[in-house]
Amino acid sequence: MSFEVRFLPEGKRCRIREGTSLMSAAQLCGVDLAAICGGKGYCGKCLIEIVDGKVSPPTEQEKKRITGERDKNYRLACQAYVKGEVTVRVPDQSRVGKQRLVIMGKEPMIELKCNVEKIFLELEPPTLNDPSADDERLLGKLSEMGYRGLKIDAHVARELPRVFREGGWKVTAVVTGRGEVTALEKGDTTAKKYGLAVDVGTTKLAAFIVDLNDGSIVYADGIMNPQIRFGEDVITRINYASQGIEKLEEVRSAVLEGVNQLIGSGTASVEIDRNEIYEAVVVGNTAMHHLIFGIDVKSLGLAPYAAGMGRAFDAKARDVGIGINRSGNVHFLPNVAGFVGADAIADILASKLHEKERLTLLMDVGTNTEVMLGDKNGIWACSTASGPAFEGAHIRCGMRAASGAIEKVWIDDEDLRVSYKTIDDKKPRGICGSGMIDAVAEMLKAGLIDTSGRILERGGVRDGEGGKEFVLVGKEETETGKEDLVITQDDIREIQKAKAAIYAGYMTLVREGGFDRNSLSEVVIAGAFGNYIDPRSARTIGMIPEIPLDRISFTGNTAGSGARLCLKSVEMRTEAQLVASKIKYIELAAKPIFEEEYVNAMYIPNSRLEEFPETAGVIKAPRVVRRYVRR
Amino acid sequence: MSFEVRFLPEGKRCRIREGTSLMSAAQLCGVDLAAICGGKGYCGKCLIEIVDGKVSPPTEQEKKRITGERDKNYRLACQAYVKGEVTVRVPDQSRVGKQRLVIMGKEPMIELKCNVEKIFLELEPPTLNDPSADDERLLGKLSEMGYRGLKIDAHVARELPRVFREGGWKVTAVVTGRGEVTALEKGDTTAKKYGLAVDVGTTKLAAFIVDLNDGSIVYADGIMNPQIRFGEDVITRINYASQGIEKLEEVRSAVLEGVNQLIGSGTASVEIDRNEIYEAVVVGNTAMHHLIFGIDVKSLGLAPYAAGMGRAFDAKARDVGIGINRSGNVHFLPNVAGFVGADAIADILASKLHEKERLTLLMDVGTNTEVMLGDKNGIWACSTASGPAFEGAHIRCGMRAASGAIEKVWIDDEDLRVSYKTIDDKKPRGICGSGMIDAVAEMLKAGLIDTSGRILERGGVRDGEGGKEFVLVGKEETETGKEDLVITQDDIREIQKAKAAIYAGYMTLVREGGFDRNSLSEVVIAGAFGNYIDPRSARTIGMIPEIPLDRISFTGNTAGSGARLCLKSVEMRTEAQLVASKIKYIELAAKPIFEEEYVNAMYIPNSRLEEFPETAGVIKAPRVVRRYVRR
Repeated sequence: MSFEVRFLPEGKRCRIREGTSLMSAAQLCGVDLAAICGGKGYCGKCLIEIVDGKVSPPTEQEKKRITGERDKNYRLACQAYVKGEVTVRVPDQSRVGKQRLVIMGKEPMIELKCNVEKIFLELEPPTLNDPSADDERLLGKLSEMGYRGLKIDAHVARELPRVFREGGWKVTAVVTGRGEVTALEKGDTTAKKYGLAVDVGTTKLAAFIVDLNDGSIVYADGIMNPQIRFGEDVITRINYASQGIEKLEEVRSAVLEGVNQLIGSGTASVEIDRNEIYEAVVVGNTAMHHLIFGIDVKSLGLAPYAAGMGRAFDAKARDVGIGINRSGNVHFLPNVAGFVGADAIADILASKLHEKERLTLLMDVGTNTEVMLGDKNGIWACSTASGPAFEGAHIRCGMRAASGAIEKVWIDDEDLRVSYKTIDDKKPRGICGSGMIDAVAEMLKAGLIDTSGRILERGGVRDGEGGKEFVLVGKEETETGKEDLVITQDDIREIQKAKAAIYAGYMTLVREGGFDRNSLSEVVIAGAFGNYIDPRSARTIGMIPEIPLDRISFTGNTAGSGARLCLKSVEMRTEAQLVASKIKYIELAAKPIFEEEYVNAMYIPNSRLEEFPETAGVIKAPRVVRRYVRR
Repeated sequence: MSFEVRFLPEGKRCRIREGTSLMSAAQLCGVDLAAICGGKGYCGKCLIEIVDGKVSPPTEQEKKRITGERDKNYRLACQAYVKGEVTVRVPDQSRVGKQRLVIMGKEPMIELKCNVEKIFLELEPPTLNDPSADDERLLGKLSEMGYRGLKIDAHVARELPRVFREGGWKVTAVVTGRGEVTALEKGDTTAKKYGLAVDVGTTKLAAFIVDLNDGSIVYADGIMNPQIRFGEDVITRINYASQGIEKLEEVRSAVLEGVNQLIGSGTASVEIDRNEIYEAVVVGNTAMHHLIFGIDVKSLGLAPYAAGMGRAFDAKARDVGIGINRSGNVHFLPNVAGFVGADAIADILASKLHEKERLTLLMDVGTNTEVMLGDKNGIWACSTASGPAFEGAHIRCGMRAASGAIEKVWIDDEDLRVSYKTIDDKKPRGICGSGMIDAVAEMLKAGLIDTSGRILERGGVRDGEGGKEFVLVGKEETETGKEDLVITQDDIREIQKAKAAIYAGYMTLVREGGFDRNSLSEVVIAGAFGNYIDPRSARTIGMIPEIPLDRISFTGNTAGSGARLCLKSVEMRTEAQLVASKIKYIELAAKPIFEEEYVNAMYIPNSRLEEFPETAGVIKAPRVVRRYVRR
């Protein structure tokens, strides 16, 4: 039995089998709907309104999550199952939406040394006395010019005779460093040579079209990773993709669709043909790397978290499914281990961590945060599940860094008055990651919480359903005008867990690597939303070590920068492989030190306040000792 | 507007657009129907009966072709167009039918040196302290065993983690000589390693499954090349495929379908999985080579007949479309030039022409005949369009070498009584190639024709519609009992043209290469139907030079043998490339010598009777001089 399900306000309709969840229906229908917990019913972000029709009765999960709005037929899409024709309205706040993304990142200047060469050739046509085959002519001429022992791609071989004759024996060959002719074009097309760099983030995709003749970026854009509909965090997606080859294919297709969409808009806006993109370089954390290529990820989700593919890897675009020239090469940067993937290598290349004279901490903050510590003498790295709290997930009034999100917060430590700034200066709809970091730092400084993170009984603090909560913005000021924007005790705990994971990762590297933390010279924060974090707040809450503010830098999306570097230079690829092979990877799951440091770092800024002397001097928060156990 | 077309006796039905020819309808419907001239209306072989329904009125072509049976609603399928619902009966004689095919050929013994190795590996599983990636484990272990610098095929990469874990870290890797891991299997599967050799003939496909562990042939079979529905000769097919990429794809799909059908029945009968076939070697003449791979063939059909791809070529099975292991390698043997293709190279390897101490003539007789002349010091080659006359086409009562075909003919030179033998000893239905060669030789010896091929007024000769004709079998003896089986003046001309093309090819090589024809030591006749030709008759009609019968040998399908040799040994592939690069190719279209020799060879056996002293001594035919002009 199947029924029509209609989604408002889009008006999209699909026939859906009875017993399917409205979450799955939305996915099938292509309707944008948040699925932070991956459809388990605990994040409460997929709130929808049943306008009309039959669905299954509310579950216990829903009764817990949906409070004020239960009377209005609000349901969680992942908990409501189709029982007949249904019309559903998806409120704006339940959509993934257009997020403010950091696409660009710092990138050093390098000399162009492309893997792809375009060579214009003028050939002699065959005659009855010299009827030798077209491939002989092509390879013979190229050999004369010093390109020896080349192979010809299958698709190029098929078109050889046509291109030669239509081009009047004047053609341009595309030759890769791997010794293959991967394209053949009529006439002299050497002026048009493009490459694609792709950064596959857990949350966002960034794509760059680079003119390989001069190295300039001709197009850059980012969109949300469409895989988000299979869960916002990496583990949820791995679990989904591990259910079978079709599920893996679904997750893979989703991200490829996103990349190909970017290629489509990019080529259209630059007015080039996608066949003129002859190579792509792809980076991402290990899970994203595996999921875009379609490598079985089951083992990535289970200890010892071994990757399927670690080394750098080249494949034909047609075998990958990326919509550049089908015979073009797609280069995947190497993964390190666990979740420290090709994106971390790209970060290192772009930030030159491996060339630093002095000890530097590099982190790429995201749903997973890669933490790298070292200098030219060696790099230690780990990956830590900082979770999506910085992206507004698991936070009562959290939201992504989209229009109307509170991104900056100040609290007067005398009268406790709150000031804030929203993205696009719209009326506030919720709080994004940088806003949460600010809020916690300010609450600490103002003495609204103690160093254990407990909310204290002071002005603006009230008893909520789940314990104490601090009212950041009264409902009269908000966009909807219906609910206060609050910071709950649970919200503070989420931020504590996220920042503790990062700091404990750093400290584990310090101790495992035998570093002197006082010698730390620089902190480099990369990542899509890193640019908007207030470095002082990040330091205040103990997310990063306390070093002078002028030695903390935000470099943006350096994963994308590293991908571009490797697109522009094969020497950078060699360097990438070298860096990858030299990194000392620490699997945190195997380290009691990490547990210990995590518990210390659950305090704000840390139970070892002596590591944060400046912060210690400015906070009004009572210093307490509690025993945290890692959850 | 579309209508239902029904084909009897199969009862197959299709909806066909108005104005489509019944020939195309049969192709669309998958009904077996001869199309020797490619639908041009001049061969008259696609005779069908309109049982019921509306088709276009008879054309002038048809009126000329269909004589005795016009009253019975007989039409040529290629000339009748659908105008409403139609029911058609396809008579047996209009079907391509099951032909007797020579699949096997002579093959020298060689040492196995496969391009594919299977290596059993026992690996250490990852641990938290050694979480390195699966590819590191695989490539590391293989490197220890001496297999260095390997790449991993994209599809293998995707399955690495699953195969490792399901196999309990005991796996078998398939490694090719090109340095790639192309398959990975659970457990120890080294005992199962198969290869496929394919000979793509213009008329037939032959496929062989070879056990690569011992070199034995475990399966051999042949079927008609399904491309026949696009025309029986190479040029007709090239013209069809040259009309556009979709037409090329149609022709390509047709032959792939045939090959994959053979793989299907082969793997089923041997009880192996098609994924256990790790490599294929393909041979065929240049056109067949191009058409199975999908290379643009337009230029092959026009002077100077340049091939698209000449060199040996490797591609992934998935890129070729051959249904073995999708990551397996498909090796195409090199083409020489013009229509002298990979099959000729295979013939040379199998017959060891390139190692002969004494001058040898090797020819692969088919719709195109490749003529190769030489010894260990050098080989000259040409291709000559001998046409489909030897396969029963363009012959009034001609048919393929199928059941009921007259394959041997004797004529008493005193009383002119005819004796004959049919295939399967059935009542005669028609005359196949070897029967025609016999008939012409016997008619010459008995003085029924003169040396110019003109039918003389003697017993059994009568005036037919198109001139004189000799009654070979009276209708009362035939299968249908309706028509005499005759040999017409035009039939003799067709045989003259075919054999003249071959002999003139040989003589052109003799003269271009500066050979002494008296030093010719051996004649080797390869080809699918070569086995059944009477060497004496072939010599009598001047198709081959007159040398002692014991120095004429028939080697069968040596193109297939050569393909198997290259499947079993990479050294043979090197040899193939070497042979190909050394062959001196003569493009006959550019040679006045060929024209001259062709005219001489139009005589039976030849206008230079001194080259055929033995034949000259036994023939009763009057010796005449006429002036032939090549048509």
